Amino acid sequence: MKILVIGGNGTIGKRVVDHFKTDHDVLIAGRSSGDVKVDITDSKSIQSMFETVEAVDAFICAAGEAKWDSFDNLSEEDYFIGLRSKLMGQVNLVRIGKNYLNPNGSITLTTGILADDPVKLTTSAAMVNGGLHSFVKAVALELPKSIRVNVVSCGLVEDAVDKYQDYFPGYNAIPMNQVVNGYVRSVLGSGNGEIIRIYK
Amino acid sequence: MKILVIGGNGTIGKRVVDHFKTDHDVLIAGRSSGDVKVDITDSKSIQSMFETVEAVDAFICAAGEAKWDSFDNLSEEDYFIGLRSKLMGQVNLVRIGKNYLNPNGSITLTTGILADDPVKLTTSAAMVNGGLHSFVKAVALELPKSIRVNVVSCGLVEDAVDKYQDYFPGYNAIPMNQVVNGYVRSVLGSGNGEIIRIYK
Repeated sequence: MKILVIGGNGTIGKRVVDHFKTDHDVLIAGRSSGDVKVDITDSKSIQSMFETVEAVDAFICAAGEAKWDSFDNLSEEDYFIGLRSKLMGQVNLVRIGKNYLNPNGSITLTTGILADDPVKLTTSAAMVNGGLHSFVKAVALELPKSIRVNVVSCGLVEDAVDKYQDYFPGYNAIPMNQVVNGYVRSVLGSGNGEIIRIYK
Repeated sequence: MKILVIGGNGTIGKRVVDHFKTDHDVLIAGRSSGDVKVDITDSKSIQSMFETVEAVDAFICAAGEAKWDSFDNLSEEDYFIGLRSKLMGQVNLVRIGKNYLNPNGSITLTTGILADDPVKLTTSAAMVNGGLHSFVKAVALELPKSIRVNVVSCGLVEDAVDKYQDYFPGYNAIPMNQVVNGYVRSVLGSGNGEIIRIYK
C-alpha cells in the first residue's frame, strides 16, 4: 500500500511512519523536511504535494496547529491560526486529496481529547477539534470511489507528556503503541466516518 | 431581567423573544431590523451593539449562517462563510459580550443537530456546529463573574419544516415550545458549559 503521512516527522507522525514502513511504501510530507514539502495552511501547496506524490492508497494527516492561551488573551486573529491550519488545513487535504486517492482508499485525520474534554487555555484548540469531528461524520456521507475517512482523537500521548502534562492534571499518558493502533484501525479497518477516541 | 436576543426576528429568535418578553425586558438585535443593528461577522459591529445596549443579564444568539452545498461544490472560501458568521460570530459575541454581562449573567448560543447527526450537503454547517459545541465546553471553564454559557442544538424545528424537510428524511419536527424551552433552561437554569440537545 502506498501511504502518505503529512506531518510524518512530528511527535505522532514519526511513530505512525515507523509502524507502517515495515510493510508499506510510506512517503513523508512535512513543512520543513520529508520526501515532499507541504504547508497545509496553503491549498496550493497541498495541490502541489499531491501532484508530486501522485495516486496513493491512503493518506494520514498528523499535522496542524492552533494557538493555546487564556480566553482573555486570545484575539480574533489568534483563532484564525487554528482555523487556517489544523481545521481548514485538514478539510483542504480531504477536498483536494480525494482526487488523488485510489478507489477504496482511506483518509485519516488527527484531532485530540480537547474536543470532548477541554482544559483551560484551549478554547481555540477545542473548537478546531470539535469542528473536525463533525466534519468527518458529514464528509463520510459524500466521498466518492468508496473512499473512507476517519479521525484519530487521542488524550495526552506519552511522547508529549513533558510538553503538555501541566495542562492535563491527572490525565493518564497514552502509550504510543496505542496511539499508533488508532491509525492502523483507520487505515486497515473498515470504519468510515468514525471518531476513533483513545482517551484512557 | 434584561435580555438581548441577537437574531431576534429569525425563525427561532422570534419565538424566543415572544416567550421572554412577557416577564422580562427584551431587546432585539438583527442584521436589518430590531432595537439595535448588528452584523455578527464584524467584531466592530458587535462591540458597537453592546455599547448601545449596555449591561445585560443575559444574551442569546439565534443568528449565524453557513453555506450548504455538496462537498464537491464547496470551495475553500465557501467554508469561510460559516467560519466567519455562525462560528466566529458567536465566539466573538462571547469574547466581547462577557464584558457587558452583569455578574451571574448567561450566554446562550445556537447550533443544530448536524454537529452530531449530519446529512448530505452539510460538511460546512456540521463542522461549524461541532466546533461551537467544543468551544462552549472549553470557554465555560474560563468565564469571569460567574457568567454561564450554554448552547442549544435543535433538530428540524417545526417552523422551518417547509424549508428543510427534504434534507432531513424521517426526522421528526421539534415543536416550537420545546425549542423555546431549550433557551429557557439555559437562561433560567443553572447549567454551565452544556450542550442542550433537543433532537426527538
